[in-house]
Amino acid sequence: MNKTFTSRLEELLGSKKVLSSASELLCYSYDATPLTSFKPDAIVRAYNEEDIQKVLEFATQENIPVTTRGSGTGLSGGSVPVKGGIVLVTTAMNKIIEIDSEDLSVTVEPGVITANLHSAVEALDLFYPPDPGSMKISTIGGNVAENAGGLRGLKYGITGDYVMSLDTFLVDGSKVKYGTKCVKDVAGYNMTKFLVGTEGTIGVFSKIVLKLVPKPKTKKTFLALYDDVIDAARTVSTIISRKVIPSTLELMDQVTINCVEDYSQIGLPRDVVALLLIEADGHPAVVAEEANVIEEACKANNVRTLKIAKSKQESDELFTARRMALSALARAKPTTILEDITVPRPAIPEMMALIREVAGKFNILIGTFGHAGDGNLHPTCLTDERDLDEIHRVHEAYEIIFDKAISLGGTISGEHGTGIAKSKYLPSMVGPKAIELMRKIKACFDPSGRLNPGKIFPIER
Amino acid sequence: MNKTFTSRLEELLGSKKVLSSASELLCYSYDATPLTSFKPDAIVRAYNEEDIQKVLEFATQENIPVTTRGSGTGLSGGSVPVKGGIVLVTTAMNKIIEIDSEDLSVTVEPGVITANLHSAVEALDLFYPPDPGSMKISTIGGNVAENAGGLRGLKYGITGDYVMSLDTFLVDGSKVKYGTKCVKDVAGYNMTKFLVGTEGTIGVFSKIVLKLVPKPKTKKTFLALYDDVIDAARTVSTIISRKVIPSTLELMDQVTINCVEDYSQIGLPRDVVALLLIEADGHPAVVAEEANVIEEACKANNVRTLKIAKSKQESDELFTARRMALSALARAKPTTILEDITVPRPAIPEMMALIREVAGKFNILIGTFGHAGDGNLHPTCLTDERDLDEIHRVHEAYEIIFDKAISLGGTISGEHGTGIAKSKYLPSMVGPKAIELMRKIKACFDPSGRLNPGKIFPIER
Repeated sequence: MNKTFTSRLEELLGSKKVLSSASELLCYSYDATPLTSFKPDAIVRAYNEEDIQKVLEFATQENIPVTTRGSGTGLSGGSVPVKGGIVLVTTAMNKIIEIDSEDLSVTVEPGVITANLHSAVEALDLFYPPDPGSMKISTIGGNVAENAGGLRGLKYGITGDYVMSLDTFLVDGSKVKYGTKCVKDVAGYNMTKFLVGTEGTIGVFSKIVLKLVPKPKTKKTFLALYDDVIDAARTVSTIISRKVIPSTLELMDQVTINCVEDYSQIGLPRDVVALLLIEADGHPAVVAEEANVIEEACKANNVRTLKIAKSKQESDELFTARRMALSALARAKPTTILEDITVPRPAIPEMMALIREVAGKFNILIGTFGHAGDGNLHPTCLTDERDLDEIHRVHEAYEIIFDKAISLGGTISGEHGTGIAKSKYLPSMVGPKAIELMRKIKACFDPSGRLNPGKIFPIER
Repeated sequence: MNKTFTSRLEELLGSKKVLSSASELLCYSYDATPLTSFKPDAIVRAYNEEDIQKVLEFATQENIPVTTRGSGTGLSGGSVPVKGGIVLVTTAMNKIIEIDSEDLSVTVEPGVITANLHSAVEALDLFYPPDPGSMKISTIGGNVAENAGGLRGLKYGITGDYVMSLDTFLVDGSKVKYGTKCVKDVAGYNMTKFLVGTEGTIGVFSKIVLKLVPKPKTKKTFLALYDDVIDAARTVSTIISRKVIPSTLELMDQVTINCVEDYSQIGLPRDVVALLLIEADGHPAVVAEEANVIEEACKANNVRTLKIAKSKQESDELFTARRMALSALARAKPTTILEDITVPRPAIPEMMALIREVAGKFNILIGTFGHAGDGNLHPTCLTDERDLDEIHRVHEAYEIIFDKAISLGGTISGEHGTGIAKSKYLPSMVGPKAIELMRKIKACFDPSGRLNPGKIFPIER
């Protein structure tokens, strides 16, 4: 029966667009999220809008699920085909359709790699700020679906702040266009902003218009090393309360620093308990003044050493160290379970203290890094999924961490999305009424629940 | 029967909160939108969340509509009680609950006057950028409901860009809280961003958390006078394409200039065909460089005179002239019908030419002003509602203007909302499928259609 199914798909789309060998099904059964793997029945690589439409129409006739996927760098299981069916891959739709340097926007297909978009617009002295950790392989379509953040979120906001318009295919294969290329548009409900972060549960984006801004003229990068993680956390609040918004304000704790050093030998002192990676960007005069405030704030909070990158190369090296944090942690133990809580910035010291406390209490190893300037922390548990007892303790620890984040007025996800990884915690955060309304909205678009099932709303098993 | 109705409301809420005299019903039958007036059955002034809850529960029992209203400065009829029922006024809920200068946010009740919020946060060197034309009387609740824009939208965005969290009462009197005080929060669907601009059709906001930014250090204001409106329009594109984003970039045409001069005698030359009011803000070094680019762009587009405000007072006078544009136009003739189209910025010259052409063709008087830096134009027809033939021609002209805006990739509303004034044009802009989905979402929240009926979706009469 599966044979007939894939051969009909091949008939419809041509055989080069349909993948269905055992190894291919395995390859598309997971993304970057641990402990989640579900095999699809077939994979379709879409090359154009017609392909998307045909897949959705076919899936409607067959009454099977469709899970849309970019590069699969997601960290909440957002592109994993929980109920099988078709994985619709958009990476081949990777054209930058238009860069409008007169009106500061860019129109792209969903499969454009985030870093490629950066290079293309920066060549014209323009800037697309959102820079998720995985930007060298992540796609814009995936970034929009997850409302991805990044290192520059603090000053520049996140993906959703740049989305102007979305051509969206609905579950039945029909297409709607929400939004315009206008910088202001309040006609009807703001469906564009709503669609960002819906994690593939509402529709498939085929064309995306993004706002651009002028490229900052210069930047200055700092590395601040601390003997106490609480001092590092307090530095964050000190900088913000002095009305300076750096473009980047990242934190790494000792576990993370040591893993990065093991992995890359870039010369981070292993006895350092925490570090901040700070960058100010913009006009040289502004950067110079902000640099003074940053320096004062670090000193006021007992910084051990404050280094200033002397060249673009030195700065790039520091950012590379930060960007490899997850890969470095992932090397240390067989299984890496990374979380994504966010709290109001003044609550970071309390949150960091709690993470340290539960790691001790449950005897587990947690490395924490993240976008401290956003209050967005990634406590990352280094474990082994075969050790069922330890995995159980990890989950117990995370429940306490989530509860604490919520009680501090925070959220269970700052930038990775709810996916399957956090769907069971969502009701305790937003309440049953709010969830019920989200479910009703989902049903308006996808009454049979065939678009990316299991994401945001848990499937009863 | 109406007597029983209001006395029961008085019993429930206390008589000082319920208004129902003939003159009071008349006062709350209209807002700042022309040609729209519908009498409510009663008015309730809410003083706290409990009042909101009681009104909504009462209206549910009685199966009557509730239309929420702030100061009634809306320009699309968003707070007019089209189907009668209760007008729920939130102006007495006017507390600024908390200014968090450590974490850069402010928590307010919906009735806070926009300009009062500005003063309160600016005293702490913080900044809430959205500044709708009516900010001296408009409320934050109304700004959020309409996703209001303003003069600073170009550089700083609009109301929705600052909304972090909304405590919202649903039609049955239950409450949900969407969003957090975190700068990043992607847990579940982004209901906060969705709720902004829903024009009172989804729920009643009782508590609003807004993001703040550091206050710009300085600003510089320019007045550029032109002999040709197309030159003024081209200056806008020239500035933006040179990667300078002024905080304000406003346009006024000759009809508007003369009305303003009649009204205020501030010394605008009456033979000038168009003017731009431009402001750069930020760090002094940045402002100085941007000022050079602005000057060059004006000269490259045949500016007749370029004045630079020499003092804060001179700058304030220029802004006052711009802010009085609508009042000045409104004095000229008995009826003022103002529109709110937005087009991509490079299309402004074509749009301005079309407006001039249709004004001639239909023999009507149109003054155009607006936020040209956003592509947001307010063609304003000076007419007399008793002259039915002229009113007919005005509507014909606007239909052509709307069609042109849409064909240029623009929108029928940049900042005033759809309301009742533009609901009939919305389907031609977004298409029937998109409207159908908006209607379905509305029904998830308010199945009997009792919250602000007639807005966004037209009532069949």
